[in-house]
Amino acid sequence: MVRLGPNRYGKAETRVVRVVRDPDGDVLRDRNVSTSLSGDLEAVHTDGDNAHVLATDTQKNTVNAFAQRLGDLEPEAFGIALATHFVAGPITRARVAIAEYGWTRLGPHSFQRRGDATRTARIVHDADAGTSVVAGVADLVLLNTTNSEFWGFPRDEYTTLAETRDRILATEVNASWRYRSTDVDWAAAYDAARAALLAAFTETYSYSLQQTLYAMGSRVIAAVPDVCEVRLALPNKHHFLIDLTPFGQVNENEAYFAADRPYGLIEGTVLADDAPDAGIAWD
Amino acid sequence: MVRLGPNRYGKAETRVVRVVRDPDGDVLRDRNVSTSLSGDLEAVHTDGDNAHVLATDTQKNTVNAFAQRLGDLEPEAFGIALATHFVAGPITRARVAIAEYGWTRLGPHSFQRRGDATRTARIVHDADAGTSVVAGVADLVLLNTTNSEFWGFPRDEYTTLAETRDRILATEVNASWRYRSTDVDWAAAYDAARAALLAAFTETYSYSLQQTLYAMGSRVIAAVPDVCEVRLALPNKHHFLIDLTPFGQVNENEAYFAADRPYGLIEGTVLADDAPDAGIAWD
Amino acid sequence: MVRLGPNRYGKAETRVVRVVRDPDGDVLRDRNVSTSLSGDLEAVHTDGDNAHVLATDTQKNTVNAFAQRLGDLEPEAFGIALATHFVAGPITRARVAIAEYGWTRLGPHSFQRRGDATRTARIVHDADAGTSVVAGVADLVLLNTTNSEFWGFPRDEYTTLAETRDRILATEVNASWRYRSTDVDWAAAYDAARAALLAAFTETYSYSLQQTLYAMGSRVIAAVPDVCEVRLALPNKHHFLIDLTPFGQVNENEAYFAADRPYGLIEGTVLADDAPDAGIAWD
Amino acid sequence: MVRLGPNRYGKAETRVVRVVRDPDGDVLRDRNVSTSLSGDLEAVHTDGDNAHVLATDTQKNTVNAFAQRLGDLEPEAFGIALATHFVAGPITRARVAIAEYGWTRLGPHSFQRRGDATRTARIVHDADAGTSVVAGVADLVLLNTTNSEFWGFPRDEYTTLAETRDRILATEVNASWRYRSTDVDWAAAYDAARAALLAAFTETYSYSLQQTLYAMGSRVIAAVPDVCEVRLALPNKHHFLIDLTPFGQVNENEAYFAADRPYGLIEGTVLADDAPDAGIAWD
Repeated sequence: MVRLGPNRYGKAETRVVRVVRDPDGDVLRDRNVSTSLSGDLEAVHTDGDNAHVLATDTQKNTVNAFAQRLGDLEPEAFGIALATHFVAGPITRARVAIAEYGWTRLGPHSFQRRGDATRTARIVHDADAGTSVVAGVADLVLLNTTNSEFWGFPRDEYTTLAETRDRILATEVNASWRYRSTDVDWAAAYDAARAALLAAFTETYSYSLQQTLYAMGSRVIAAVPDVCEVRLALPNKHHFLIDLTPFGQVNENEAYFAADRPYGLIEGTVLADDAPDAGIAWD
Repeated sequence: MVRLGPNRYGKAETRVVRVVRDPDGDVLRDRNVSTSLSGDLEAVHTDGDNAHVLATDTQKNTVNAFAQRLGDLEPEAFGIALATHFVAGPITRARVAIAEYGWTRLGPHSFQRRGDATRTARIVHDADAGTSVVAGVADLVLLNTTNSEFWGFPRDEYTTLAETRDRILATEVNASWRYRSTDVDWAAAYDAARAALLAAFTETYSYSLQQTLYAMGSRVIAAVPDVCEVRLALPNKHHFLIDLTPFGQVNENEAYFAADRPYGLIEGTVLADDAPDAGIAWD
Repeated sequence: MVRLGPNRYGKAETRVVRVVRDPDGDVLRDRNVSTSLSGDLEAVHTDGDNAHVLATDTQKNTVNAFAQRLGDLEPEAFGIALATHFVAGPITRARVAIAEYGWTRLGPHSFQRRGDATRTARIVHDADAGTSVVAGVADLVLLNTTNSEFWGFPRDEYTTLAETRDRILATEVNASWRYRSTDVDWAAAYDAARAALLAAFTETYSYSLQQTLYAMGSRVIAAVPDVCEVRLALPNKHHFLIDLTPFGQVNENEAYFAADRPYGLIEGTVLADDAPDAGIAWD
Repeated sequence: MVRLGPNRYGKAETRVVRVVRDPDGDVLRDRNVSTSLSGDLEAVHTDGDNAHVLATDTQKNTVNAFAQRLGDLEPEAFGIALATHFVAGPITRARVAIAEYGWTRLGPHSFQRRGDATRTARIVHDADAGTSVVAGVADLVLLNTTNSEFWGFPRDEYTTLAETRDRILATEVNASWRYRSTDVDWAAAYDAARAALLAAFTETYSYSLQQTLYAMGSRVIAAVPDVCEVRLALPNKHHFLIDLTPFGQVNENEAYFAADRPYGLIEGTVLADDAPDAGIAWD
């Protein structure tokens, strides 16, 4: 009558901090790691037979043990090591998702957490399909005070928005990019991709957030040859010009209301012309 | 060198409350509505040409206008009306996602918000593929104090978890189910699906959360013939028995620590044997 | 040059769940407990001398041990037991703050968490001043669809708000009430106070949220003679009537925008005429 | 039978962004402003008479109008202007609380939001008592990887914590400091106070978080003569060393679990010896 469809299970949000100690300046690897496994798991669903279920507690232990053993490793390499480890026997696919929080060093042993630098990685390893790596950035809020227009859009019976030739454009960047292989200088590639996102946002004279999105994705691909695909989700963090005329004041693009909800949400993918099929990368 | 891949855009989280007034007892339709459109949108990405871009502000206005005009409509029907409206000209697909918050009536005009009853709906309408409807429930936290075991799992070098024959099982249900058609008594189907989830959780003697998940999905399909697929994401909200032996106390499954992170996360799909292909339903 | 002023320390948010087992229906006491101690703590601040510092880890252990030992106790009584225990030697004052989450029983061993019933308690015990008890409720969202007006307010150069004779009034009740003694039927008093808040909100024809606040506080005092003071913080959860005239629609108090920010915030205290001095109760 | 006690009302969280335009580099003042008024407000509570109630909507308008008019002003000065304005007629006291979010400039018109730099100010103006100013910082997360011990604490029947001579010390600083007057270089004082907090945290070899708290407060007072009082709330963000011995690994202060709850919470006040009475400052 019924059958089991796609499924996976794992331990979410293992919060492990690895201190790599160095008298000249410690290194912090502050991570939130989520693992998901799939494979021959029919019996646990239908009969409660756990013989193939590597316990999520064991997954957590493994994340912690690897964090200690592997030390100062880039998150992508850490994820590859974990995902490869988990695929064995009935477990045929593993996904490891990592958020790494940035810290600024204040002294050899002192740090201040940055709130603007969450680096992400998503590694999928499959017994047949091999390994794929997606990296990204979150918590990156950008704003241009000008050089943004929005006009020429269709007007139907429900359209009241005025056209504008000068507005604030602000967004919280959620970007992820897919690598062509696992033979990558992860830290350099991340830095270059992030810099490309900032440069594209800053330098694009924008007629729509979609145009800015496409520029951001294009620029990452141009800057990092190892990247073949970029996915972006850009909320339009609306800043509405406040009408001060009732108070006899002129508001020449000076005072804005930063709205919470609703917000525009622009999602899109930019691909290199020769991007290989994504396969399991975004699983 | 680069090309545009899949994309969509819209207005997220339009918070519209519709009061249907009745001297004997008003009705509240308290909704959070997100719309997403896709279609012939290449030019806006590459050239900033907005000629095909129905402004997200217009989408918001449309949501509001429909809310007033359509009155006391089930969220699925409301979403179908909206999605169908948006597909026109260059816009060839629309997705409408709705969260509807439950309220308890205290008097003819007075209400108390329930925190345990968020009803969801996700409607996709495509110019070619037609209309699909997914409904669901969120913010539903369930707990069994017993009738849950977990043992027989494999033990590798990283396994420390003890087997247990009696534990608390708790989860926050995130469930969505796909309907076979749009010819459904939405309110009755929702009530039946929700009741089936509660009954399956309550009545299943569980050897793993996967088993409970499968039972929940199966029961929804059995209870609601209009449903052909159920997707569940069940966090395992761990309750760890507290060791009180250092204080000379025996803790016979009485005092538990409710942990935040990490948590298990069990995701799975249950399908009717004759479920048609999902097509765009989960888009 | 400098000196230490008021200080306290403790363990915040110990999440302990007590299951009181009964074949006919278990009882859940699901609590978030925060303890704070103060006393002769100068040395730890100035010299790092911990001789008087009952470790916050010990405080957590104590909360857990008491939860097991005391069983099905009202949160006020649980807090009194804890606070009294902690005051000893250099610790001369203890505050215990408790949030207790409500669950609905679905079967003898099955529960669904309510999202609308957080019961709070705040107990302060002082070596000299004795014990005081404040109880309260949180996460209680109420809405009247009518019977609310707002007019007659002063109009200055920055006033643009129109007067209204019919609006939605909605708030998330944050209420706390002080008891005259510790000789109270805590469960009955809580139920009566909560019912009084609901009744006052529902039955008050309101010309301002301040008036509703005063009615709510007054009604609690009238309903529960053991209560001598009520403190309320009521956000005005604005629901703005949506202008649909651009679309040729008339919106006769039917469709509203539920705004997030900014929001009104009304705070006030209602006292019984013979209320004794609050002393340390709100410490 | 009942009487009105202390009360106030206002508009919370007006989100106003002021762009001060300059071809060489714009300035952003991104603020979240909450205003609260009190005074002769008996009638609105008891009779719903709004004649003395400056509408919270008017308060919001005033915040917005002042933001445009006053331009690139420090938050303390902005708050003083607002609070002084509001005190008139029946309104005898106004409190203005401001959170100002920091942004890093990326180009003349481009910005990236910092997540680690929320500057706060709290201004109270009273018709009789005059004006007081409190400033502060939030969202400042600090961590020392070493130079922290915790031992010598009392051991009672509920104590299980081991003494430690080397631990991670991490906290999210919530600090506020009171100024002696309103004749202060606000920006310079803020920078100096913030730098003092960082320096004290970094340079203090700590035997308890209380000791660190006292050092932080003392250092602010030493660094900024205009400050007479510092209040700190420091959660102890526990990082627990993970036991890897079951896996044959030695964890020499390398891998830690970053716990969410429960957490220690240390609160304290440091005062200059000659600090004047706080009066209404912390109202």
